[in-house]
Amino acid sequence: MALIVQKYGGTSVGSIKKIRDVANRVLEYYKEGNDMVVVLSAMAGQTDSLLRLAREMTDEPDPRELDVLLATGEQASVALFAMAIKSMGYPARSLLGFQVAIHTDRLFGKARIHDIETERIKRELEKKRIVTVAGFQGLDRKGNITTLGRGGSDTTAVALAAALKADICEIFTDVNGVYTTDPNICPKAKRMERISYDEMLEMASLGAKVLEIRSVEFAKKFGVPIHVRSTFTKERGTMVVAETEDMEKVLVSGVAFDKNEARITIRKVPDRPGIAGKIFHPLFKSGIIVDMIVQNTSEDGQTDLTFTVPKSEFKKTLSIVGQVGKEIEAKEVLGDANIAKISIIGVGMRSHAGVAQKMFETLAKENINIMMISTSEIKVSCVIDQKYTELAVRVLHTAFGLDHEQGQNSSA
Amino acid sequence: MALIVQKYGGTSVGSIKKIRDVANRVLEYYKEGNDMVVVLSAMAGQTDSLLRLAREMTDEPDPRELDVLLATGEQASVALFAMAIKSMGYPARSLLGFQVAIHTDRLFGKARIHDIETERIKRELEKKRIVTVAGFQGLDRKGNITTLGRGGSDTTAVALAAALKADICEIFTDVNGVYTTDPNICPKAKRMERISYDEMLEMASLGAKVLEIRSVEFAKKFGVPIHVRSTFTKERGTMVVAETEDMEKVLVSGVAFDKNEARITIRKVPDRPGIAGKIFHPLFKSGIIVDMIVQNTSEDGQTDLTFTVPKSEFKKTLSIVGQVGKEIEAKEVLGDANIAKISIIGVGMRSHAGVAQKMFETLAKENINIMMISTSEIKVSCVIDQKYTELAVRVLHTAFGLDHEQGQNSSA
Repeated sequence: MALIVQKYGGTSVGSIKKIRDVANRVLEYYKEGNDMVVVLSAMAGQTDSLLRLAREMTDEPDPRELDVLLATGEQASVALFAMAIKSMGYPARSLLGFQVAIHTDRLFGKARIHDIETERIKRELEKKRIVTVAGFQGLDRKGNITTLGRGGSDTTAVALAAALKADICEIFTDVNGVYTTDPNICPKAKRMERISYDEMLEMASLGAKVLEIRSVEFAKKFGVPIHVRSTFTKERGTMVVAETEDMEKVLVSGVAFDKNEARITIRKVPDRPGIAGKIFHPLFKSGIIVDMIVQNTSEDGQTDLTFTVPKSEFKKTLSIVGQVGKEIEAKEVLGDANIAKISIIGVGMRSHAGVAQKMFETLAKENINIMMISTSEIKVSCVIDQKYTELAVRVLHTAFGLDHEQGQNSSA
Repeated sequence: MALIVQKYGGTSVGSIKKIRDVANRVLEYYKEGNDMVVVLSAMAGQTDSLLRLAREMTDEPDPRELDVLLATGEQASVALFAMAIKSMGYPARSLLGFQVAIHTDRLFGKARIHDIETERIKRELEKKRIVTVAGFQGLDRKGNITTLGRGGSDTTAVALAAALKADICEIFTDVNGVYTTDPNICPKAKRMERISYDEMLEMASLGAKVLEIRSVEFAKKFGVPIHVRSTFTKERGTMVVAETEDMEKVLVSGVAFDKNEARITIRKVPDRPGIAGKIFHPLFKSGIIVDMIVQNTSEDGQTDLTFTVPKSEFKKTLSIVGQVGKEIEAKEVLGDANIAKISIIGVGMRSHAGVAQKMFETLAKENINIMMISTSEIKVSCVIDQKYTELAVRVLHTAFGLDHEQGQNSSA
């Protein structure tokens, strides 16, 4: 008799039959006496086809109106799901972002949830209705529809679980958990039974396929236990939970990689206070998220600054920074989109030395050149030439003892 | 410098290119200094494909959830339209039913508008934005999405025009006006320059292709002048306006027909007070709209009762009335779906006698048997065998002097 928030992704509700399957699965929990809140994404392919429609209209669709358009995808899903439940003889009710209401800021296309009203949902649950909430969408202060960006339905689910003080948030997806690395690249990857919020956050790029990063931040902030599992099997997946002591015994939990970044280098910038601000302020204002930043030691009062941005923002960034480069009298601005970021992650790093060193040596042994390095308490990331990605992942996975003995293991 | 409400139907916004064409047309008005409120239907075929999706899920989709699903069609249209306007460098803003807000009762699938808040729209107009409003949708008292039924976008447009005290409501559609009868059946049909609200209401079945009947009721009630015209030409169409004296000089304005009704006959009902109530109450409760009702003179304390309902409700009605028939000890309940209703309409009838007689004689001359007759101040309707529909329309059109001398006339 728990309050359970479940989220099903686009492939899980990709057809009428699949929506019916999800309805049956949800009913199993409901019949056991649980209160069910079900967050749905748009049917697989729907968001992309709406985007295509918008792009056919104009190269740069107005962000506010794009959100109005995209929000229809999840709206259709929850309506069809509620129909399915009702056709099976059980009570259900769909709620859209404005009906819940889910309040966000007004950053169209990548809005952040401010707060969620729970009265309406609670009222529906008291009537023993299965509540289905459109993922990905919210409402700004002025009543405009906003969307939370790709993977936003995960965030909707976790935020709802937090607001409702749900017992658990289950994220159903097309993979059966979180792996030590991508099994498509490394056949010896293992599924993890548990992973801490911090590790999951650091595994962003690996985890992006499984769990949207902001949903993990939300879960960590409010202590919502997340269960990542497959829509298509009954087996347990991976629990994403608060860190426990025994997690620290493992040196490295996983190897992540990210091919979606590009590198920008500003060469020979006069090294004056305030230069970094001059460079990054216009990027911040354009909503471009800068990931890694490395500044080389100053030489003759000049310095080199290198940073990475999402590949999708590469051109825009080059153009903005090219402009800024002139203003601050940099020698040149270079860009490279053929890079990959490889990371090793583990809360165990906090209490163990030499992890970074081992990583560098392992890559060097394969003649893989390291272009940038960045470290945090529980992560070491290296930027390398993109063509070495798979090789780097495999050798690191082996070097840090993550390989499963019997190779592929899908039911650990 | 007027406040103009325009409505474009599904075929007018049936593709990205067509939406762009509509945007250009609206901009012409806007650039002349007019305040523009643009109501849109779903893109042609969209509502049907959403309905198919719902029917694939279940034979009887939950009405509340069906409205949530259907409302996505108009939502997509207004988002794309606003994008189009903005991509052309002009300010626009889409508003959905809940954002306006358009308040309705909670009869899902055929809700009626109670009132419309105008503050939000006026605020947008003051900012010189082109406002586009999703047709067909509203919000009930509890914040549920409702839809107004087929053709509901016309009603949205006229209701908005009334609420905003607009100077005119222009309904853009795929025909260029209202004709004396269907030109596809009768090549001599003429386009009318003007028609009164009452005539337009009576021409419901003919007009249904052009103008939704409730929108005309709204227009009449609030004195909103409607201009019915083609999206694809610049020529003027038909004005639907309040009755003027000179309109009465015309005996008959048009000939309408309706093949979408079915006939139910209850034979030999004990003729007691309250019997009609017993028969029609359950139909009313099921939301079935009864059109013509004829009760034959009682004979031996028994009477025959015949009425028509929409063909789509034929089976449901037969089953309900079959049940009631037993309870009230009727001899039998018969049904016939192969009927047509032919009507002649004109405010001139009020001051002229013999119109009905002329109609009966004209039909008789062609050996067309009349099954039911119903009359109002400005209309005479006869139910006949469906196979005679076209013949009846043509002979009546000629008999009442409606034929255009040069045959087809598309730019009168």
